[in-house]
Amino acid sequence: MIQMTVNASRPYDIFVGKGLLEKSGELCREVNGGQRALIVTDSNVALLYAARVSASLEAAGYKTDVFVFPAGERSKRLETVSAVFARLAQNGLTRRDMLVALGGGVAGDLTGFAAATWLRGIDFVQMPTTLLAQVDSSVGGKTGVDIAEGKNLVGAFWQPVRVIADTGTLDTLPQKVFADGMAEVIKTAAIKDSRLFGLLEDGDAMNPSKREEIIAGCIDIKRGVVEQDEREAGERKLLNFGHTIGHALEKYYDYTSLTHGFAVAVGMAAITRASERRGLTAAGTYARLTACLDRYRLPLTDPAPEGEYLSGVLLDKKRAGSKIDLVLLREIGDSYIYPIEVDSLSAFLGGGPGGEV
Amino acid sequence: MIQMTVNASRPYDIFVGKGLLEKSGELCREVNGGQRALIVTDSNVALLYAARVSASLEAAGYKTDVFVFPAGERSKRLETVSAVFARLAQNGLTRRDMLVALGGGVAGDLTGFAAATWLRGIDFVQMPTTLLAQVDSSVGGKTGVDIAEGKNLVGAFWQPVRVIADTGTLDTLPQKVFADGMAEVIKTAAIKDSRLFGLLEDGDAMNPSKREEIIAGCIDIKRGVVEQDEREAGERKLLNFGHTIGHALEKYYDYTSLTHGFAVAVGMAAITRASERRGLTAAGTYARLTACLDRYRLPLTDPAPEGEYLSGVLLDKKRAGSKIDLVLLREIGDSYIYPIEVDSLSAFLGGGPGGEV
Repeated sequence: MIQMTVNASRPYDIFVGKGLLEKSGELCREVNGGQRALIVTDSNVALLYAARVSASLEAAGYKTDVFVFPAGERSKRLETVSAVFARLAQNGLTRRDMLVALGGGVAGDLTGFAAATWLRGIDFVQMPTTLLAQVDSSVGGKTGVDIAEGKNLVGAFWQPVRVIADTGTLDTLPQKVFADGMAEVIKTAAIKDSRLFGLLEDGDAMNPSKREEIIAGCIDIKRGVVEQDEREAGERKLLNFGHTIGHALEKYYDYTSLTHGFAVAVGMAAITRASERRGLTAAGTYARLTACLDRYRLPLTDPAPEGEYLSGVLLDKKRAGSKIDLVLLREIGDSYIYPIEVDSLSAFLGGGPGGEV
Repeated sequence: MIQMTVNASRPYDIFVGKGLLEKSGELCREVNGGQRALIVTDSNVALLYAARVSASLEAAGYKTDVFVFPAGERSKRLETVSAVFARLAQNGLTRRDMLVALGGGVAGDLTGFAAATWLRGIDFVQMPTTLLAQVDSSVGGKTGVDIAEGKNLVGAFWQPVRVIADTGTLDTLPQKVFADGMAEVIKTAAIKDSRLFGLLEDGDAMNPSKREEIIAGCIDIKRGVVEQDEREAGERKLLNFGHTIGHALEKYYDYTSLTHGFAVAVGMAAITRASERRGLTAAGTYARLTACLDRYRLPLTDPAPEGEYLSGVLLDKKRAGSKIDLVLLREIGDSYIYPIEVDSLSAFLGGGPGGEV
């Protein structure tokens, strides 16, 4: 087991290790003195882990109840949070009690938002069960939901009192969901840590014996970036490596057929191919990056027509101002911000004739 | 015009004076550099003041839109906030833009909550147009909505960037709504400021020439209490003078036929009658308090059977623990906390035979 502290406005600890859900009751009890806990989880995760977490919490003296929502991104909306509120009221949860987010990013985001706003804010514990949630969404304190008009438009900054990442849960992940998380793992290593990237390049890097170290390494990087953010405004932007194109693709597919990780993989490959061609990235970086993406069965390209999927993002960015902050790799493990004009993005990616950026 | 600063986690200024809505654009522009403003107001206030505020904001360079909800407590719920979110999206409000709460407590509470959660928090300005909202709900940073299961169960702490209290708006208040606010004015003076209470005892104390001073005096007291709250946990409880019984009465009538101020007036009279009888309050205090309440056409008693309306509150309090912190007046302008057993409340109020409390 690896333990780390995040120095947020309210510091909290992250635990990474196999079998931690069995100990989740004790780990919660150390930071929360309440009587009741509501576990919020989706219909897939509920079948696998809700009973285990519930038993551990009951053994630690909590009265528990489980709120189950339909698995999928579409549950991340106000109506689900509203249903959580009704359940919190029925259970009589007070300011001293606690919410538990058990599952992937959707569970974490909507449960965190419910915790931020129930009685103007109560404790919540993150128990991420997907690779993506373990390395990404359980650090940073961003909570929220989507509305019909757009994703993540409603939310709050609210820190968990503890994050319990049981790496054993990754054994039950479908291959595609695992790969989805690997895109963020590779991204994190690529922008900041060549040693970690080296581990990923090894065959079978995500076998159970190495998972803890790799996941903790990713969390440590994100933690460092988030903590520095107030002092160094650009630093957090590095986490967006591959995300300008990735978001454009996700939007093009209306957030349905292409997952976040797969879209970011395509984005990282596309931007690095272009930047290496222009001498903005060390020679050989594209080959290493794509070999690593490919090893974890992530895509390097997408059949969607570039002109079409970029146009949505370009329009949004144009409204906000004329520049885009691209994130480029100097080499594996080192990244930087490269601002370009919105209109130059297509040409930069090689779609247009010129190199005038 | 009177100007005060509230030293909250993010300090902000309160302006009290006649005709301030005409200057609201400039006053907003001093603290917010955005391009767009959404004014949220109810169907009564919209007819009276929305155009005036909108014109002033437009003159200060804001593009404005007005969101109107049906007047009344029933609008203070998630569905209304959800409709505000949709409008915010349609107008493309960014993190730099601003919400305006124009109206009474409902407008302030739900608009503040929308501001706290739109894009994880944007600026909002309070423009209270009722006496109650001017003296009470625009200070303290509590925002939120009711849900079917109870009042104010969902919300956030979120401070306005400015409060603009135009005392001219009080001229258009129905007498009952004005009296409703006077209950909180009298309460505030009674617990903390005998000089202010003296002003209220004068005939016609709320004529336009004295309003500014009295409203600013009340805000100043609440501000002091709220600022001290972190150091002195009990201090904020003094603001609950008359509220234990008041809340019980409001609940008994299901928050419909009896307004908050009227319920609190009955509560202050009942508790002070009992405490003076027991020698816990200086002789003559009850007579002064009730004469003042009566002058502003507030009730001193209610026909509801005491046993019935108290039982709901007693049950709630019993669940939370066995003590109630009553707020008693030592004399006019001086108050203190007096804890009693839950079971003793009826006897304390004189309903029972004994004085054993």
